[in-house]
Amino acid sequence: MQPFPTLYVDLDIVRSNIARMASKAEKAGVEFRPHFKTHQSKAIGKIFREYGVSGITVSSIKMAEYFLNDGWGDITIAFPANVLAHDYYNNISKTASVKTLVISEEVVQKLDNKLDNELGLYIEIDPDYGRSGVPVSELERIKSLLNAIEGSDHCYPAGFYCHAGHTYKACSKDEVEKISREALQKLEALREHFPDLPICFGDTPSCSVLDDFGPATQISPGNFVFYDWMQVQIGSCSPNEIAVYMQCPVIETFSDRNQVLIHGGAVHFSKDSVQVDDYLSYGEPMLKYLSEETYVKSLSQEHGIIQCSPDVFSKLKVGETIQIFPIHSCLTADLMREYYTKDGQVLDHMNGKMGGS
Amino acid sequence: MQPFPTLYVDLDIVRSNIARMASKAEKAGVEFRPHFKTHQSKAIGKIFREYGVSGITVSSIKMAEYFLNDGWGDITIAFPANVLAHDYYNNISKTASVKTLVISEEVVQKLDNKLDNELGLYIEIDPDYGRSGVPVSELERIKSLLNAIEGSDHCYPAGFYCHAGHTYKACSKDEVEKISREALQKLEALREHFPDLPICFGDTPSCSVLDDFGPATQISPGNFVFYDWMQVQIGSCSPNEIAVYMQCPVIETFSDRNQVLIHGGAVHFSKDSVQVDDYLSYGEPMLKYLSEETYVKSLSQEHGIIQCSPDVFSKLKVGETIQIFPIHSCLTADLMREYYTKDGQVLDHMNGKMGGS
Repeated sequence: MQPFPTLYVDLDIVRSNIARMASKAEKAGVEFRPHFKTHQSKAIGKIFREYGVSGITVSSIKMAEYFLNDGWGDITIAFPANVLAHDYYNNISKTASVKTLVISEEVVQKLDNKLDNELGLYIEIDPDYGRSGVPVSELERIKSLLNAIEGSDHCYPAGFYCHAGHTYKACSKDEVEKISREALQKLEALREHFPDLPICFGDTPSCSVLDDFGPATQISPGNFVFYDWMQVQIGSCSPNEIAVYMQCPVIETFSDRNQVLIHGGAVHFSKDSVQVDDYLSYGEPMLKYLSEETYVKSLSQEHGIIQCSPDVFSKLKVGETIQIFPIHSCLTADLMREYYTKDGQVLDHMNGKMGGS
Repeated sequence: MQPFPTLYVDLDIVRSNIARMASKAEKAGVEFRPHFKTHQSKAIGKIFREYGVSGITVSSIKMAEYFLNDGWGDITIAFPANVLAHDYYNNISKTASVKTLVISEEVVQKLDNKLDNELGLYIEIDPDYGRSGVPVSELERIKSLLNAIEGSDHCYPAGFYCHAGHTYKACSKDEVEKISREALQKLEALREHFPDLPICFGDTPSCSVLDDFGPATQISPGNFVFYDWMQVQIGSCSPNEIAVYMQCPVIETFSDRNQVLIHGGAVHFSKDSVQVDDYLSYGEPMLKYLSEETYVKSLSQEHGIIQCSPDVFSKLKVGETIQIFPIHSCLTADLMREYYTKDGQVLDHMNGKMGGS
């Protein structure tokens, strides 16, 4: 038994999550370009190959390098182009088809001056989410940006990229569906005006809930490979579709307040939380099924405090472990930096020892 | 210029923060056993040696191993003993004087059965903070636990350890002082009943604000080595005592809403935040001095959005960088895994390449 907080992955659930999304993409006639920012693992990446995936999505240049080194040759860096990082784009685009996002002509020009190789640029479209991108309604600005890309020496238009991040505010499948259909509806104008350009759409809630993607021709969800307790709250998945859990030692029990101290804190789980009923949860014990009163109440650097129902409390013993679903599996995996499988294998994560980063 | 989010450390400020705390401890007649969980760096640890430090505090067994390998021979693991980790205690206590915390007789007994070497046990005292520890008022329980330690084969009483974490709820120096004096007042009974046992007290707000530590005979603050924006809000320090900042590329500017997109997200800063006036801040640009309207408004995995005053906004340019104070330097350093100095040196962090972990 691992005596420290350990991240376990259930590869059967991973395979079933991938199979379902790959099959959905195929039926809907869209290209499946999964986002690898959640698992950041070559070993887990390889599973996607079994389901016909050849083009992938990542969130940083370093992550592109990591997967390029494992033979992935068609990579979208789903983050707006960083003009300071031209040397890195030049390096990775020597041997792979690399695409990234862009929002302004200024960046196209500044970047183009420094590029040696071809770089695909998706115009990032903001479906009124407000994080980044050209607002979907500003068609003239989009046309002008497209002209700048077409007129550049090294860049070519890769299409449109749209992240409907406001689905993360949803609390039910119906809400996710409503928000994502509205976002897709807004993208219809792009298909009409630029029928030859791909439209990539991709957040896990939308892709989990929808079966058709309207004007989109590509999807790039990421979190679905593992899911997590946040996605359960949003309405994207059920608890038995969550493929990762933390196993944490029970350090002490406090019978006066039905609380348990675990080794497992902010440096393991991350500080992401979700509102569940009237409390904020930093993790959901898998024993939760027995009681809705049981949840991770607080995290400090290494400490976690689990508030328990009397029944769950009576089952937790010092010197044993407890299994906990992370709230946000992307951030938990990023911190844990390796995965254990049920049969004791250790899988790489980009940040870990085996990742060599 | 680093094209990616980079954590800088100002060693002049580090030295001045250490010197001030070391001198305060000396004047107050308490042993200075600094907590190394904030920097987790051998290079920064070495600086403490120049100020006479020989005993240190860490938050995990792995961190104890890391510093033991750099010649630290007197280490407190300020986390309640983990009975599953007996092999690790046995390993590190072969060559170092190791102490950890304990709350219950059950743990003393379970652990003692598995130990080969001597292990010091501080009784963790809860000053009505409510995270962990024996409530300070339960003197009989404390005596009984002390007997269990004294009666064990391998453990000896190292003293009492008290973390007054509720000072983190303070919003001014006066509030910190009030909370920490109350906590120290509660420890007077321990000095009276157990005059020969050390009392270790150590949170950064208390140790920053107080000049005498009443019944405490040791202090173990950690965050003060760097401080951060949370400590400014609490009242522990001024902004010019913060020794670390993130440098992040400005990726895009959004003039319609005076916002700037940076590369710098939850995997760099962590998701810790503080309430400042009527907003939640995930980081404070060092340009902040020019405007109170400027702060990191939101973080996703790699994205940060800075809300700017019109004046600050006009100064931020795509392809340049911005310097930002982290909200919680311990978690930011834990994620960034290395430090750059002003003169381009790279310093180790336990989690990083140079840390070999």
